Amino acid sequence: MTEAPREESVGVEERLAALEAERDEYLNDLKRVAAEFENYRKRVSRDQESLVARAHERLVKELLPVLDDLERALSAAEEHEEAKLEEGVRLVHRELRSALDREGLAEIETSGVFDPHVHEALLTQPSEAEEGSVLEVIQKGYRLGNHVLRPARVVVAAPQNEADAG
Amino acid sequence: MTEAPREESVGVEERLAALEAERDEYLNDLKRVAAEFENYRKRVSRDQESLVARAHERLVKELLPVLDDLERALSAAEEHEEAKLEEGVRLVHRELRSALDREGLAEIETSGVFDPHVHEALLTQPSEAEEGSVLEVIQKGYRLGNHVLRPARVVVAAPQNEADAG
Repeated sequence: MTEAPREESVGVEERLAALEAERDEYLNDLKRVAAEFENYRKRVSRDQESLVARAHERLVKELLPVLDDLERALSAAEEHEEAKLEEGVRLVHRELRSALDREGLAEIETSGVFDPHVHEALLTQPSEAEEGSVLEVIQKGYRLGNHVLRPARVVVAAPQNEADAG
Repeated sequence: MTEAPREESVGVEERLAALEAERDEYLNDLKRVAAEFENYRKRVSRDQESLVARAHERLVKELLPVLDDLERALSAAEEHEEAKLEEGVRLVHRELRSALDREGLAEIETSGVFDPHVHEALLTQPSEAEEGSVLEVIQKGYRLGNHVLRPARVVVAAPQNEADAG
């Protein structure tokens, strides 16, 4: 059974109207999402600047008492109050270390065997110790989280000389 | 002049096809933009974490030589090398100040009149000086860029007493 031409024509008009409505809805959605995306991009660019600024601000603020105590130690030095100066320097060191520890700074281990990932050998030296042992730390190394900020600079035990052993 | 029914029918079919094509194109664009937006959001969230981490890392790295020299000063203290200790503390102070200066830290001015935006009055004190002058700085204040990190804590000249003046 086929529909009457008149009914078919109404069906087509309805389909056209429905399609137009669908098309307009998608177009509106597209415009809205694109505008949201653009606003988000702009906001992100502003946020990133202030995020870095805020992150710095917190750390710099934590360092102000260190600076204060350092200046107090300098005053003690000027007045030749040696005991006070020494005590002040110890305090400053503790404060700076704990401010940096809170940031995730950690000293690199140097007891044991040379590890090229975290150590830098400045010198190898004949020694009674096992080949590759760390003999001396010239400069402490530090990591921040998993990242090596600075390798530990060390002196490493040279291979045992067989001529000496014989 | 009206079109023949047959031609009209072809026109409707074409309009339907064109509308469908338009609708599908907008839908595809919508899906693509929405997916890009979602990926961007995810990337931003990852970036922000590493941005803060990298920003911190730079500052922490700049503070390592300060820590080194502080430890060298401590060794001098332990060996009672007073001159070396004092020199070391001066060096550490210069290094810390310049690391923080590079971050944008600046001392708050205290010469002149009390300014409640950047000063905190701990005490007012009778004085020959003009009312509201800063007489003494108890603790230095600092700003980072335009933002006051810590107000300068000061002693301020009290109003001139008229009984004294008369």
